[in-house]
Amino acid sequence: MVERRKSIPVEEAVQRVLTNAKALEGEEIRIEESDGRYLAEDIVADHDVPPFNRSPYDGFAIVAGDTAAASRDNPALFEVIETIGAGDVAEKEVTNGSAIRIMTGAALPKGADAVVMLELTSEIDGSEGRQIAIKRPFKSGDNISWQGEDTASGSILLKKGRKITPGVKAVLATFGYAHVKVYKRPVVGVIATGSELLEVHEPLEPGKIRNSNAHMILAQIRQTGAIPVYLDQLKDDFDQSFERVSLALDAIDVLITTGGVSVGDFDYLPAIYEKLGAEVLFNKVGMRPGSVTTVAKLKDQQKWLFGLSGNPSACFVGFELFAGPYLKTMQGVTNRFLQSEEAVLSVDFPKSNPFTRFVRCRVKREGGHLYAAPVGLDKSNVVTSLADSNALMILPGGTRGYKSGESIKVLLLQGEGSDKFCL
Amino acid sequence: MVERRKSIPVEEAVQRVLTNAKALEGEEIRIEESDGRYLAEDIVADHDVPPFNRSPYDGFAIVAGDTAAASRDNPALFEVIETIGAGDVAEKEVTNGSAIRIMTGAALPKGADAVVMLELTSEIDGSEGRQIAIKRPFKSGDNISWQGEDTASGSILLKKGRKITPGVKAVLATFGYAHVKVYKRPVVGVIATGSELLEVHEPLEPGKIRNSNAHMILAQIRQTGAIPVYLDQLKDDFDQSFERVSLALDAIDVLITTGGVSVGDFDYLPAIYEKLGAEVLFNKVGMRPGSVTTVAKLKDQQKWLFGLSGNPSACFVGFELFAGPYLKTMQGVTNRFLQSEEAVLSVDFPKSNPFTRFVRCRVKREGGHLYAAPVGLDKSNVVTSLADSNALMILPGGTRGYKSGESIKVLLLQGEGSDKFCL
Repeated sequence: MVERRKSIPVEEAVQRVLTNAKALEGEEIRIEESDGRYLAEDIVADHDVPPFNRSPYDGFAIVAGDTAAASRDNPALFEVIETIGAGDVAEKEVTNGSAIRIMTGAALPKGADAVVMLELTSEIDGSEGRQIAIKRPFKSGDNISWQGEDTASGSILLKKGRKITPGVKAVLATFGYAHVKVYKRPVVGVIATGSELLEVHEPLEPGKIRNSNAHMILAQIRQTGAIPVYLDQLKDDFDQSFERVSLALDAIDVLITTGGVSVGDFDYLPAIYEKLGAEVLFNKVGMRPGSVTTVAKLKDQQKWLFGLSGNPSACFVGFELFAGPYLKTMQGVTNRFLQSEEAVLSVDFPKSNPFTRFVRCRVKREGGHLYAAPVGLDKSNVVTSLADSNALMILPGGTRGYKSGESIKVLLLQGEGSDKFCL
Repeated sequence: MVERRKSIPVEEAVQRVLTNAKALEGEEIRIEESDGRYLAEDIVADHDVPPFNRSPYDGFAIVAGDTAAASRDNPALFEVIETIGAGDVAEKEVTNGSAIRIMTGAALPKGADAVVMLELTSEIDGSEGRQIAIKRPFKSGDNISWQGEDTASGSILLKKGRKITPGVKAVLATFGYAHVKVYKRPVVGVIATGSELLEVHEPLEPGKIRNSNAHMILAQIRQTGAIPVYLDQLKDDFDQSFERVSLALDAIDVLITTGGVSVGDFDYLPAIYEKLGAEVLFNKVGMRPGSVTTVAKLKDQQKWLFGLSGNPSACFVGFELFAGPYLKTMQGVTNRFLQSEEAVLSVDFPKSNPFTRFVRCRVKREGGHLYAAPVGLDKSNVVTSLADSNALMILPGGTRGYKSGESIKVLLLQGEGSDKFCL
């Protein structure tokens, strides 16, 4: 009657999911559409930065030597022979005693070897800008941004796998990437199962609850960069569920189901995996919540099936630990895991538990330290706490509880991610 | 010749931008389209959670008293009179000696006052599931999720101003918010100015650089939740720029320009603000980079104009400090400022500076502490460092430099934000 399952440790479960997981191929898209995507090519400088010697200030380009003896009482005088804006190239050459008025970003004129900021010069009365005075010495090279001092042409600026942020877009634009190669986004289908489920617009009925998992999972999928598709909400019925799941697999890269993976009499997912001929990578993990999280793989098609618990918190945790890193791997993401940090537990957790727990919590920084407090009750059906948590605290299983002030690890939900999975 | 401007402190500049800034009105959208938007209404529970007494486990609903004397050698026996799945309501009542097989999430049947997990029961041989044995005592109330124990009907679950995350969506779905009221998103036009600018697809020319600021700013705008619109790239020409800016103002809520706000001869933005009759809130801020950041306001139309520097780093910082919080205010966001944290400086910064500096840096957590190191050279024209920084370190102006190991403040670029502006 009761199916006996073999539990494996969380680390091993993550390992099984990611072994043989591969990035999808790349596609070229316009820079305008690239926000939040992941680079599928290294970004290389197509020119020196700065591309020419240029002025970082508004001012005058001069020969520095002319100011060697300049002082308040004995200013050096210059004749202004030309004015150039950013984007212009001076027609004239700077020679001793002459200066070219130059704007921020403009190329250093020939002959000049220093720039003097506008505010350190004064106009000679009555010259109408044609003559200026400088009252202190400047050295050759002062206030010049040298060609290539930031980056030399040909150097790798950004490695593939990086997320395209505003700063990355600035780099792409600077180096002429009007199109950029990014990893394709996997299409992820979501099916919620459970005869107790109502759609969000339906009024409550005795014994029923509204389907919150599908909406949550769709948003979690979107956060990874993948494309979520809500397929269906199914009753606990084997034939209908089998048909819907088989059909779904044609159109998508990954299928995520919620519910139906436990050992209840109406939990049909295990039987569906079997009938599909899918290889079950694991169906029990040594953790709370989410111990029934099941991951299976269609052998020939390289399609993964994630069977998450129907319990909202278990569903959330199962997604973040297993499905999230897998979807990021498909997009070539380097930092595919939740970022793990040390924190100080700010309440007692007296009850021991043989299993590793992932407790929804809020972390707060104070005085450079990170403090973690659980959010709400930690019953795994408490849905409101999911909105308030910004991390999962990891409480390794064992025979003792945990005390306020102890150092623990937390997984940050909104962090930058990590390239290693660390518990 | 040189326009003299009055510099104001950063805090005062932020204050001037946000005084009288208001949230746009709300709009109802479908839950499916609500990811990343900001709640314009408090979310209220329309029912108790759980909505009925239910079982958190697969198992059997019984009268607890029947197990009072149960032991390994003397198990309590039960007749299984019905089986209910989640979503079903039992037809029968549990009486002494009877049990109803119950799945996770199903409503507790009448008469039952405890649930025993499936794995703590055993089937009587040959009974074909009709009889079970329980080998230890259970108390009244064991393994029941009580109606309302999580949340009582009518209570406020989430306050307006919150960002819609996966966890928030779970709450919305649970409480029947098929439609949710969110703040409208401001439409933000971007115009890049500078005769030196080439479009990203154009080959480099002497004295010219590609326009990276517009692409960066568009991505920064998108990150705030607002709708970015790239309008144009303009030469340093007063008439053309004035016409384009005037025209743009009709179609947008906010205009962001890059370049043209300095005191160079080709910096026309100040003159454009004047001709538009805009009130200049400030045009010089006591900070580096970004000291020329200018913010103006069209008096009658309540339209803000942000004039950011044409220098990429100054442009980035000017956006994050002033435009970002303003765009978030328009969307009713509570945590509209960059989150400020204490960090340990991990290199020397020997040079003193009279102005508060915002240095692009990378923060790293180690052993619960936050360490900050500047990214690349800190010349404000170093564009690659923008891609690598995840924070801005704040180095207050003064007569001394900073030493490795000193405690400083950083503003996190990817944090959760803060409701206060703290330097």
